[in-house]
Amino acid sequence: MPTSASPFVADDVILLPPPLTSGGRSLADALAARRTTRDLVATDLPMPLLSSLLWAANGVNRPATQFHAAGRTSASAGNSQEIEVYVLLARGGYRYDPVAGRLDRKAPRDLRELGLTMGQRGVETRAPVQILLVADTSRLSHSSPFKDPGLSDPTITLAYAHFDAGLVAQSIYLFAAANGLAAWLHNCDREGLREALKLVGDERPLYSISVGYPAPHAGA
Amino acid sequence: MPTSASPFVADDVILLPPPLTSGGRSLADALAARRTTRDLVATDLPMPLLSSLLWAANGVNRPATQFHAAGRTSASAGNSQEIEVYVLLARGGYRYDPVAGRLDRKAPRDLRELGLTMGQRGVETRAPVQILLVADTSRLSHSSPFKDPGLSDPTITLAYAHFDAGLVAQSIYLFAAANGLAAWLHNCDREGLREALKLVGDERPLYSISVGYPAPHAGA
Repeated sequence: MPTSASPFVADDVILLPPPLTSGGRSLADALAARRTTRDLVATDLPMPLLSSLLWAANGVNRPATQFHAAGRTSASAGNSQEIEVYVLLARGGYRYDPVAGRLDRKAPRDLRELGLTMGQRGVETRAPVQILLVADTSRLSHSSPFKDPGLSDPTITLAYAHFDAGLVAQSIYLFAAANGLAAWLHNCDREGLREALKLVGDERPLYSISVGYPAPHAGA
Repeated sequence: MPTSASPFVADDVILLPPPLTSGGRSLADALAARRTTRDLVATDLPMPLLSSLLWAANGVNRPATQFHAAGRTSASAGNSQEIEVYVLLARGGYRYDPVAGRLDRKAPRDLRELGLTMGQRGVETRAPVQILLVADTSRLSHSSPFKDPGLSDPTITLAYAHFDAGLVAQSIYLFAAANGLAAWLHNCDREGLREALKLVGDERPLYSISVGYPAPHAGA
């Protein structure tokens, strides 16, 4: 099902179909197949596959309790859940809402070029999807149950944010490996994306990950 | 098989049995079960399970070619492979050699207390194993095929190292979830471990992950 023909699509909101949260290829098989593949084709990902990819990246895997926010597939320092997942599609830039299972459009235009840096643009086939990892470091410094004196030091909070983004990114790589997709992690135009997505305060784009079907010749 | 009775054990070297690189619980099931569990029991991990855990973390998943080093289960910036995995056991601190499939002892004493920070010590049951993630940032700045001007900036190389350590850590969390183990990621005594493990140059301990069997009452 190409995304452009999906019944789930409206202009400003994409309601995601339920992700697959069990079954499929084994973790060990995914680890064995994990690799970076830059040669992607432009074919859209079916919406159920995209939904499952986003859930794997940073979805809700257990409900909220009296004392804790809903649990996530990826850990975060002090459970601050400071990594936000954005999705860059031809039709716009969207923020993933893992609780509601939907994408909210933050920019009505194709931002995938900003998901690459100058030297990378035009070199590689454009992926149909980029997963952009955005850190809101203010959540780290306001994470009250987590009594870590380092959290008042911006160098340390930024290091934590990078680490926590890595946790999310590995799940994306493994999901791609488990589902026959190609994935490639790259730097992005951080300032350009911050402006285009109207990010505010301490929200910073860190890295973007191109995901799509591999080109037929994509080799070792 | 408790590690203390393993036939693979010598004083300075532990030859690891082959890791399981296929089959087992699905990636989706592992993601659904992913969580932090601090309540661990002291029971040793069987050596084959430890070997598979280390392979999942940062093992070799494809052989070296004419142009590339052996591939790894975790990506790294510019394929610099700058994250080293150390294992802290009661009998010493070891460096994981993912190519040879062995552990080389770097310190002949129990360093698990240094794998925790002051506020954490004594609060939690001691895990039988800690996986310590060490970054050698010099490999990032010397990663010649990777023409990233940021790699001469220590702030950027440290951010990359934290990100790449996150990639490794997520595989450890997922391996634990897939194999009924508890995992808990924490800060460590970076200077103390650097000295005890005789790390040199740009080698820095970043985080340590306690892994073991969950306590019977370990809950939500």
